[in-house]
Amino acid sequence: MKIVRVQDIIGTEREVEGPGWTSRRLLLKKDGMGFSFHETIIPAGAELNLWYKNHLEAVYCVAGNGSITDLATGETHEITDGTLYALDKHDRHVLRGGSEDMRLICSFNPPVTGRETHDEDGSYNLAE
Amino acid sequence: MKIVRVQDIIGTEREVEGPGWTSRRLLLKKDGMGFSFHETIIPAGAELNLWYKNHLEAVYCVAGNGSITDLATGETHEITDGTLYALDKHDRHVLRGGSEDMRLICSFNPPVTGRETHDEDGSYNLAE
Repeated sequence: MKIVRVQDIIGTEREVEGPGWTSRRLLLKKDGMGFSFHETIIPAGAELNLWYKNHLEAVYCVAGNGSITDLATGETHEITDGTLYALDKHDRHVLRGGSEDMRLICSFNPPVTGRETHDEDGSYNLAE
Repeated sequence: MKIVRVQDIIGTEREVEGPGWTSRRLLLKKDGMGFSFHETIIPAGAELNLWYKNHLEAVYCVAGNGSITDLATGETHEITDGTLYALDKHDRHVLRGGSEDMRLICSFNPPVTGRETHDEDGSYNLAE
């Protein structure tokens, strides 16, 4: 059994951030769970163009609000506490922060190793 | 892309409950993510003996409080908002609700199919 406390991650190399997001890597590939598990904060008003080419991702909102636009269909879905989105087709999307910082709980398959960078494999934050 | 709203699951067959727990199955095996994803509520004061023989599970607390006892070591860990526990060794454990209902976000590998029962494979709620 492993116990991980987010307050022990904040400010370490397991907390990563970029323009419009901060992500805390609670479980990575090396933890051997077969998925990785993250908490991501999207500040109010942020806008991110994302495309996870190499991963499936599920994202569950537990606080705050925002929206997601599916670039394949053009549809925009509101996100509030209790909304999950699953990127089951490596969907290109735009994620927007709302009026309050959004707290998202995320699981990736295959698990993130922690060595990915945004520019290297294009898995994150592709087009701005 | 799939959008799932927990309010659409409450009261359906994707909300399952037993003594001391209620679980909302946001993503199951059939969703093809390689993991399942659940929101589980543990009421204040509940006590559950659990042993997931067939699954690895990560559990992240986003509200409320409780504790977990690792039956292999006898250690008890407090659980509050921001605590994750990973059952990376199919750990037998006792999960206890605290002074407030605990809201847990859970990911299982392999994904739960939704057809498991507690008595059948012993994966849940083993000894009371």
